[in-house]
Amino acid sequence: MGEFEFLARVRDRLPPPGSQVELGSGDDAAIVVPEGATATSVDALIDGVHFRREWSGPRQIGRKALAVALSDLAAMGAEPGEAYVVLGVPPDLDEAGCLELLDGMTALAADTGTTLAGGDVTRAPVLTLALTVVGHAAEATDFVTRAGARPGDALVVSGELGGAAAGLALLEGAAAEGSGRDRSLFVALSQTNSERNAALVARQLEPSPRLGEGRALASLGATAMIDLSDGLGGDAGHVAKASGVRLLIDADALPLTAGVAEVADAARRDPLELATSGGEDYELLAALPAERLADAVTHLEANGTKLTRIGEVLAGEGVEIRLPGGRTLSPRGFDQLS
Amino acid sequence: MGEFEFLARVRDRLPPPGSQVELGSGDDAAIVVPEGATATSVDALIDGVHFRREWSGPRQIGRKALAVALSDLAAMGAEPGEAYVVLGVPPDLDEAGCLELLDGMTALAADTGTTLAGGDVTRAPVLTLALTVVGHAAEATDFVTRAGARPGDALVVSGELGGAAAGLALLEGAAAEGSGRDRSLFVALSQTNSERNAALVARQLEPSPRLGEGRALASLGATAMIDLSDGLGGDAGHVAKASGVRLLIDADALPLTAGVAEVADAARRDPLELATSGGEDYELLAALPAERLADAVTHLEANGTKLTRIGEVLAGEGVEIRLPGGRTLSPRGFDQLS
Repeated sequence: MGEFEFLARVRDRLPPPGSQVELGSGDDAAIVVPEGATATSVDALIDGVHFRREWSGPRQIGRKALAVALSDLAAMGAEPGEAYVVLGVPPDLDEAGCLELLDGMTALAADTGTTLAGGDVTRAPVLTLALTVVGHAAEATDFVTRAGARPGDALVVSGELGGAAAGLALLEGAAAEGSGRDRSLFVALSQTNSERNAALVARQLEPSPRLGEGRALASLGATAMIDLSDGLGGDAGHVAKASGVRLLIDADALPLTAGVAEVADAARRDPLELATSGGEDYELLAALPAERLADAVTHLEANGTKLTRIGEVLAGEGVEIRLPGGRTLSPRGFDQLS
Repeated sequence: MGEFEFLARVRDRLPPPGSQVELGSGDDAAIVVPEGATATSVDALIDGVHFRREWSGPRQIGRKALAVALSDLAAMGAEPGEAYVVLGVPPDLDEAGCLELLDGMTALAADTGTTLAGGDVTRAPVLTLALTVVGHAAEATDFVTRAGARPGDALVVSGELGGAAAGLALLEGAAAEGSGRDRSLFVALSQTNSERNAALVARQLEPSPRLGEGRALASLGATAMIDLSDGLGGDAGHVAKASGVRLLIDADALPLTAGVAEVADAARRDPLELATSGGEDYELLAALPAERLADAVTHLEANGTKLTRIGEVLAGEGVEIRLPGGRTLSPRGFDQLS
């Protein structure tokens, strides 16, 4: 099957385009009439760098590629609009595998109201995905950047942290079977086929973009927002730098995913490290005027998502994580803990 | 140097953003306020598939990646707006090489009025580029798709054909030195350091998107348009299929790039094959109401680009290439010629 026949089959599987899309996949370019402002973000996922095919099936990989891209739109408070997909197909991924991958992507696109409006399929040495996503808002100022946090704002995080890193540790632990007696406890834990382990692995392999939460926080007055892809410490640093403020985070307040403490214990790692340096939780970190905090918590919880105040915005620069006992820690300084 | 430091250095080298760009690279997403309709296209270029690093330096590769992407906007008659870049960096491309690649891209961006508004940099097994470009027009109907060609329209092509394929043949010929006596004539030609050879190789390695020509043809009433990336035969087929018409092309009328006939002769290939199946000329093929043809020729030639009538649009389906002597040829049928 040639490229054009393959693309025709892909187009047959796409859900109908959104109302702003005048012309979808199949011409030189897609035509969209945005009614206001757009937010555009690109993300690449490459086998061996961002995922491993031995851990994820094509459907999971396709879904995650779109999820990771949409998470950036969530962090802008954008309404998801269109996605454009580059798919680099390695010699050992057949047509059925490609269609399965695209099915994973179209399922999430349908769930989130995203139109797959174009793409490019090519040969590649390893499975390569690049996703461009476009989100919409009525006005440019409706989007929330990283740059507006003000001293006095509350610092909040959606959902729970550390789950994706714990899931990754479990996958790596299972893969490291037999690598030494000191890891036996962890290998045993990682091989336990428990619901809790499965949930942690799903946090790693099947993240969900917090699109509704992002739009809600934007409309509730969030002054700065970012999605937690690199880890709380590093991503908080981006907000602090862009906003020209200091962020003080209370380690005791961090909402850990169930099971993170146990995985950290078995892996001889600090649960705080998993929660702040592990990354890939794809939760939202936002600064919010303190007087809007109660409304925001109520609104998100009514829609099934926890919102936790984890610290505050101060004048100054950088990020500090306040540990029990009054010590503070720079977010990159976990060597000090071990 | 880490990813963030590298990206900061890249941002320092970018020209200022266009007027519709509210927020460029550096946040979760770029913010744009399109004043009308957008045309969006993505293209991937992967080492060993779309280019070879032994033939092109990083600057040429960066420039070509953007040129190929912008060519799709030219084919829509769009005003170029923003570009988003995924750069997958292999182990043997250092920071200086990456910056050189981006310099090639930013130079073409500056020449064409394109804003590099965002991107993602990652490790990759081989040099991998994915470009998303967004073009603008006042209304969706200002864009020219592949689907509007009508019986009676003239079929025109910009510039000259076959040069990119001849350039590729020269590069391959030089690489194939010593592969047999029957190739000695061609190897000798390909090693001739002539201006003509250099111009053909430049057509392959340094294509220029026909952006001004595309906008002019759109405003002059082009009913369908496509850029010649796969080759005239195949690309004409896309127009025929999308428009539901038959395209009749006169082989004698095809404007060959100077030197194509000589390269074809030495390589024992048909010059028509290079002009219609070689691809990568990135010229524009357009259907135009016959009464607008003279205006279009005058307008493009006043701006330094030849416009040639190569055939006509008829009722029916498919593409036929009329050879000297009244024979016709389906565009994929070059096996019949040899």
